[in-house]
Amino acid sequence: MREVFQQELHEVQHRLVEIAELVAISIEGAVHAFNESDVARAEEVIENDNRIDGLTVELDELAITILARQQPVARDLRIVVSALRISASLERMGDMAEHIAQLARSRFPERAVPKGLRSTFAEMGRLDVEISRKLAELLRTEDMELAEQIRDEDDVIDDLHLRVFDKVLGETWKGETAATVDATLASRYHERFADHAVSISKKVQYLATGDWSAESVTPLPMA
Amino acid sequence: MREVFQQELHEVQHRLVEIAELVAISIEGAVHAFNESDVARAEEVIENDNRIDGLTVELDELAITILARQQPVARDLRIVVSALRISASLERMGDMAEHIAQLARSRFPERAVPKGLRSTFAEMGRLDVEISRKLAELLRTEDMELAEQIRDEDDVIDDLHLRVFDKVLGETWKGETAATVDATLASRYHERFADHAVSISKKVQYLATGDWSAESVTPLPMA
Repeated sequence: MREVFQQELHEVQHRLVEIAELVAISIEGAVHAFNESDVARAEEVIENDNRIDGLTVELDELAITILARQQPVARDLRIVVSALRISASLERMGDMAEHIAQLARSRFPERAVPKGLRSTFAEMGRLDVEISRKLAELLRTEDMELAEQIRDEDDVIDDLHLRVFDKVLGETWKGETAATVDATLASRYHERFADHAVSISKKVQYLATGDWSAESVTPLPMA
Repeated sequence: MREVFQQELHEVQHRLVEIAELVAISIEGAVHAFNESDVARAEEVIENDNRIDGLTVELDELAITILARQQPVARDLRIVVSALRISASLERMGDMAEHIAQLARSRFPERAVPKGLRSTFAEMGRLDVEISRKLAELLRTEDMELAEQIRDEDDVIDDLHLRVFDKVLGETWKGETAATVDATLASRYHERFADHAVSISKKVQYLATGDWSAESVTPLPMA
């Protein structure tokens, strides 16, 4: 039974990595579509999101089947529950990539990325792509060094997110209302994408170390 | 064992209702703070969110303990897994209320709600409050009529969300950039709040009827 369980856990991990890799492809396409007004690429990303959604639903079903069949307890149980949560966060990361692609498509043939913020969004996008690749690698290897890098890169994205607001609320901002709306939404999507990656990293860290403090700052009375 | 399990499920349900009621108080405060520039009320909401976060973590721990001790299968297992997901969505609803309160606080003593959109946000806010109360009631009673009402009200909020964008992108919009940013973010938070309520409603509907089609439009190959 134990061996079957281990095999099933490997299957779960394998699928999480697969979904994370699709999310990485999605965000790379979305960032390119947004920065370069590539509407064909935007369509691809929007299409691809159905696949991510379907795979997360299948993974959730697998996790529930494992809970029913193997009846895991203690750490094994937490691994399966964490897989469900990681799956939900990956699904949301896919949604954020889709939202960025939708912005690119809605403004086409104009550029969605507002003038005066191109370098900022190029940097945010580059970091989101890097984070997504590191996340897939983290899920594959459980190399905690990657979790720390993801957290550091998220800090940079948070700073860039604030810089977007400083820019649009500053005196030099000449953008029209549509540019302000696009900048606000796009920045939020880029920032949320990275937040979900950090949230997943913390769960992987917990699984690898058993240290719940990485998972949550709230005391856990029943832990 | 079965009786203990039923008692524990009631405890889970009781706690979900409790959290949903706190979320209803939060959104009511946030909507008031945002529409009336009530900074004291905004502070309360922001403070209150820690409590919601703490209670969802405790609930998750209880659910995991039940999985470990009772080893539920089939429908019972899905009830506990659904509780974990409902808890996550309630936590996000609390976050949305907090974000709306933060907007109110950040603009104080100015009003965060932009001129020309006061009646739209009053209506969105009213609907979010109503949805949150119906959601707590739905979790308590599993009265599916409430789930349908929540879905209908979410449709209205989606329309209002689009109307906000029509307004700020229209020729009559005289708002400054800060007003455009506030309108964009606030509208998104109001809309996401209702989305989470719909997502929870679908889970409750599944639990009450066993019909997964309400839960997800994606085919479930392993269901």
